[in-house]
Amino acid sequence: MSLVTPPGYYSLNEESVRAFLDGLPEIQARLGGKPADWTVVEVGDGNLNLVFLVDGPDGSVCVKQALPYVRAAGESWPLPLDRAFFEQAYYRAVAPVVGALVPAFYHYEPALYAIVMEKLAPHIILRRGLIEARRYPNVARDVGEFTAQATFATSDLGATIEEKAEWASTFAKNTSLLRITAEVVFTDPLGTSPRNRWTSPHLDDLAREFRADSALKTIVADWGWRFLTDGQALIHGDLHTGSVMVTETDTRVMDPEFAILGPIGFDVGAFIANLVMNFIAQPGHAKAGDERREAADWVLDQVPVYWNTFSSRFRALWETKASGDAYPPAMFGPADAAALDAARTRFLDRIFADAVAYAGVKTIRRILGFAHNADFERIADPATRAPLEAKAARLARQFLLEPGSFRTAEDIVAAARAV
Amino acid sequence: MSLVTPPGYYSLNEESVRAFLDGLPEIQARLGGKPADWTVVEVGDGNLNLVFLVDGPDGSVCVKQALPYVRAAGESWPLPLDRAFFEQAYYRAVAPVVGALVPAFYHYEPALYAIVMEKLAPHIILRRGLIEARRYPNVARDVGEFTAQATFATSDLGATIEEKAEWASTFAKNTSLLRITAEVVFTDPLGTSPRNRWTSPHLDDLAREFRADSALKTIVADWGWRFLTDGQALIHGDLHTGSVMVTETDTRVMDPEFAILGPIGFDVGAFIANLVMNFIAQPGHAKAGDERREAADWVLDQVPVYWNTFSSRFRALWETKASGDAYPPAMFGPADAAALDAARTRFLDRIFADAVAYAGVKTIRRILGFAHNADFERIADPATRAPLEAKAARLARQFLLEPGSFRTAEDIVAAARAV
Repeated sequence: MSLVTPPGYYSLNEESVRAFLDGLPEIQARLGGKPADWTVVEVGDGNLNLVFLVDGPDGSVCVKQALPYVRAAGESWPLPLDRAFFEQAYYRAVAPVVGALVPAFYHYEPALYAIVMEKLAPHIILRRGLIEARRYPNVARDVGEFTAQATFATSDLGATIEEKAEWASTFAKNTSLLRITAEVVFTDPLGTSPRNRWTSPHLDDLAREFRADSALKTIVADWGWRFLTDGQALIHGDLHTGSVMVTETDTRVMDPEFAILGPIGFDVGAFIANLVMNFIAQPGHAKAGDERREAADWVLDQVPVYWNTFSSRFRALWETKASGDAYPPAMFGPADAAALDAARTRFLDRIFADAVAYAGVKTIRRILGFAHNADFERIADPATRAPLEAKAARLARQFLLEPGSFRTAEDIVAAARAV
Repeated sequence: MSLVTPPGYYSLNEESVRAFLDGLPEIQARLGGKPADWTVVEVGDGNLNLVFLVDGPDGSVCVKQALPYVRAAGESWPLPLDRAFFEQAYYRAVAPVVGALVPAFYHYEPALYAIVMEKLAPHIILRRGLIEARRYPNVARDVGEFTAQATFATSDLGATIEEKAEWASTFAKNTSLLRITAEVVFTDPLGTSPRNRWTSPHLDDLAREFRADSALKTIVADWGWRFLTDGQALIHGDLHTGSVMVTETDTRVMDPEFAILGPIGFDVGAFIANLVMNFIAQPGHAKAGDERREAADWVLDQVPVYWNTFSSRFRALWETKASGDAYPPAMFGPADAAALDAARTRFLDRIFADAVAYAGVKTIRRILGFAHNADFERIADPATRAPLEAKAARLARQFLLEPGSFRTAEDIVAAARAV
């Protein structure tokens, strides 16, 4: 890979983004006034992109442009630009069923690998809100609803063979980000990648112990195989609390550039893992007079809210909107109702089991791998942070090595409290 | 779908195939002489294609052309021509690793949807040989070797994410034949499709009983979901004994137009099911002085030969040629050898379990669905045929409802004898 970019591509800045938007009549009309009247702020705090918020007299937009390298690693980790294509393709695929649970999509500019979409305000990133002990009464239900709607509609339960084949063919090409997930989530954390880091020396022993645990490593590899092969639905691919923006009343899922056809439990497990990590990290953010006990309890309680919303919505969609080629209605009559209901329960139990395992994988990578979580990173004192990270890692190992202990979302809650 | 064919397409006949081949210098050179010197015979006995065998003074070729409808159903079941593209794409993908276990590929003519390849002689179709009680000492080992090499090389164990993505993107478009498999293998046989047929009235009760078995139907649907989602490797997709041509010493796998990214066990189970059905059918072909007992025993003994060859070759390839992104060598060191070995055993046990279930699905569809097997169909007397078909159907139900009873290939042998 190289940093040579395709003809017509240039990195936008706060000036050139005005000229770009000025050339899009619909966007210009949305903003109102002249480019000189617009305020432009670059706010990208992610790893991979530039993000501009643009306000005009009549309205606002957000411009997200892919960079040809992983921003956090500097230019030493080049990265193809086409992930912006997959991001907008995902928004287009799921928008019909998830509605305002994603930002409104306005325009995609192929040459610039830039998406123009709704500017979310006064939303903040859910992870930041949770770290600040804020509560969002709708968020677990909203993300559960999002996960159910998006995965059902793009699975063989909600889509025909021909519809799913279009997504399969398109998203199969999202290999750059698939490789990143395969490497930084599954391969590196228990291997010996120079990209790995951990709170050292506090967790040196834990890192050594995990990397010497042959059984754990092969189980993670089993789930890596499943991740690479199990094309159940179009999944978001990076559904952590940093990919969700919130207000007290509104929830939006964003940053779907890792979208692939994959296991539904990978999205479910990612969200659960990030709630659980925030719960475990809460004592690290305690201040005099605020032990963070209630905040922690609230976050952990969102795990069953999320799972129960997901699973009941997914089941309801299956009961009322089955229009795919799996479990085809033509096979079943009224006499099969009880058996089909049992099949749905089996199906959702398997998704739950997958989610528990992927939650384990996704947690370990945040403690021992390349990309860490602000939930832990914002705990400045490593002597406070390390034991909390160790708790998360031990729970993750339970998720992977004791799958029989996790049958319900309440089992996750109990184990997270006990760890 | 319609029978309007694309510009440039015409159905070949014994005359026009000469003109077509005359325009291909390499083929002309291979055949030698002039088109008028060539003998041409159309031998297609399949459902979907024309097949010409062409002999010249210096050599021979086979021309296989896709027809725009399912031949056995007449023009009432139209079918896109592009399956010829997928057939040649499959040959090209696996040829580097399976060598002469497939026919040599010479030319693909996109406008005609025609493949020019090696003419196999004096090969006959394996199914026909087995029905005639012939023995092929190499065939189970050869097809086991074929299955292992082709699936390993195109899985995430033998291919990189980028290589597999090319196949995923290409073969995702093979929706016409995927839909046929989904419908005629999984949906129709236990449903109420007008395409279904069975030996009637002898098996009317059995058909009714199976179609009233809600548990069986949901289990078949579970495996239908797995078939549609589980993209483990590029699979042949129709690996029965009618897709294998043999002599006493040579084995060739052909007709891979159903190729998709799918579960490895679907290929393995298809071949096992067709051996087992031939075993069960043998008494129906008995004549005075030939009870077919030895022939039947020989066929059934090929089940463990096939599975053991497949599994030991697959394991050996994994041990020596792992070059994919699943179970990446970078994760494992010498201290992990025993755990990795156990993971390989788990992995192959899962493929076996998948194969047993798909063998069940594939057997039921040959008794109650659209396309039946010559193994049973050649038994002219329905009163002789029906009880043998019923045995096969009952064994298939065991495969699906009692998975715990089938841990080894020998368990299949024992159950097939006992049924």
